[in-house]
Amino acid sequence: MSDPWQECMDYCVEVTKKAGKMICEALQKDISVVQKSSPVDLVTETDQKVEQLIISSIKDKYPTHSFIGEESVAAGAPSILTDNPTWIIDPIDGTTNFVHRFPIVSVSIGFSVKKEIEFGIVYSCIEDKLYTARKGKGAFCNGVPIEVSRQEDIRHSLVLTEMGFKSDPEQFKTMLDNIHTILTIPVHGIRCPGSAAVNMCLVACGSADAYYHIGIHCWDMAGGAAVVTEAGGVIVDISGGPFDLMSRRLIVASSRAIAERIAKAITEFHVGRDDTDGE
Amino acid sequence: MSDPWQECMDYCVEVTKKAGKMICEALQKDISVVQKSSPVDLVTETDQKVEQLIISSIKDKYPTHSFIGEESVAAGAPSILTDNPTWIIDPIDGTTNFVHRFPIVSVSIGFSVKKEIEFGIVYSCIEDKLYTARKGKGAFCNGVPIEVSRQEDIRHSLVLTEMGFKSDPEQFKTMLDNIHTILTIPVHGIRCPGSAAVNMCLVACGSADAYYHIGIHCWDMAGGAAVVTEAGGVIVDISGGPFDLMSRRLIVASSRAIAERIAKAITEFHVGRDDTDGE
Ligand SMILES: [Mg+2]
Ligand SMILES: [Mg+2]
Repeated sequence: MSDPWQECMDYCVEVTKKAGKMICEALQKDISVVQKSSPVDLVTETDQKVEQLIISSIKDKYPTHSFIGEESVAAGAPSILTDNPTWIIDPIDGTTNFVHRFPIVSVSIGFSVKKEIEFGIVYSCIEDKLYTARKGKGAFCNGVPIEVSRQEDIRHSLVLTEMGFKSDPEQFKTMLDNIHTILTIPVHGIRCPGSAAVNMCLVACGSADAYYHIGIHCWDMAGGAAVVTEAGGVIVDISGGPFDLMSRRLIVASSRAIAERIAKAITEFHVGRDDTDGE
Repeated sequence: MSDPWQECMDYCVEVTKKAGKMICEALQKDISVVQKSSPVDLVTETDQKVEQLIISSIKDKYPTHSFIGEESVAAGAPSILTDNPTWIIDPIDGTTNFVHRFPIVSVSIGFSVKKEIEFGIVYSCIEDKLYTARKGKGAFCNGVPIEVSRQEDIRHSLVLTEMGFKSDPEQFKTMLDNIHTILTIPVHGIRCPGSAAVNMCLVACGSADAYYHIGIHCWDMAGGAAVVTEAGGVIVDISGGPFDLMSRRLIVASSRAIAERIAKAITEFHVGRDDTDGE
């Protein structure tokens, strides 16, 4: 039997490229910004337009499929992963970068069936780098196979994370204490590029050795999770346990040794799940 | 009278492109890494080879000129700025990125006469972005004029800095406390790309609104200082006072208001100057 999801993936590549083009065109114009939950949680008209483009294009072709999209969820749609074929969409990953025309901005789409990710696409559109991965078939950047660095020694690693203001002072302090702890190991350095999906792809292609994040969302992770896994990377929960797409916690690494070392170093703090209300 | 330094600048562009090509070629091969002052201060054979290429090319043509090059200084050459025409060279700005093939790596050259910077060139060679600026004649990226964002409100700003391990625990703590303070203002975000010269150019082209750094060196700043100044940016000392190329302290910003707000937020810590010994 032929691969039932390859057609979806091919179509996804097409739609993602269109979405990326829309983002690059929007960068030529004025960008008007709206605050979401806080002064540092931004959204633009383009986030919403791009998500509409993606969802309507896919719905046309696959009317029975489900969707979890960042902006649809912000507008009240449920964020529950079911067994149904589900497209998990971040129309712009790195909205703050987009607003500032900081050149790391991506479209991220992951596709899950029976709660397992079948393929993922991340398009870093300003750089024009298209990352693609189909389960069991490897990971690619612009068609060229990629793999993780296979670095095992954290002291020789470059680590990615993101820092942001947190209204909870304890969480804010723990986030910065974690950076202190990681730098003290020591590692070669920490970089904060500002797009979770691109961070995962940078680990996938060996340009960084790890990425960790507490407070990330499923739409930030779904596309990149396929890419980094197929590139030979390790993806686990922040505790070091099994990765859970809806948990808002993530470590990806070039090796199990580095993933475990980061899990050991990090102090967790509580963030709600993507699939429960009220947090 | 025609511009006496334009010829030097044209030649500098040529040499910088050659240097960038050498770096990109080295990325295709194995990279062997040597530690300099600490496990997180790295240097490669390529840093040294690229600096030799740059200095020998320029010496051939301008035998009376002076040089301050990162790797020559590491090897014991003096780092004193005189009135003589002086080429201030970072052969690879972002060596840690280079080692990891993290795609932000640059060649940076500033040219000073009577201790004033006459022109600066920064070549972000993996991105193939060549930033150029001649005093009084504007700043360009690949020949296209660039300017800063002109943002005045720090709460709408994207801020760049770098975080690294510091063996002095007080300095290390102050560095992270400063990040806490800046994020709490709040700003839109902090990014850490890993190349000081590129950070300055990102402010110059409006992709970020500020960059601050304590512990930077003159060869990291000289090229970018020309670019950001000619792009309409503000460049000051970390205290908010006049910029001093040898001071190892820097704020660049899209506006005086943002530069002053950052100077107010930052707690200084002591680092030695580039032009004194023993620190
Ligand atoms: Mg988004
Ligand atoms: Mg250097």
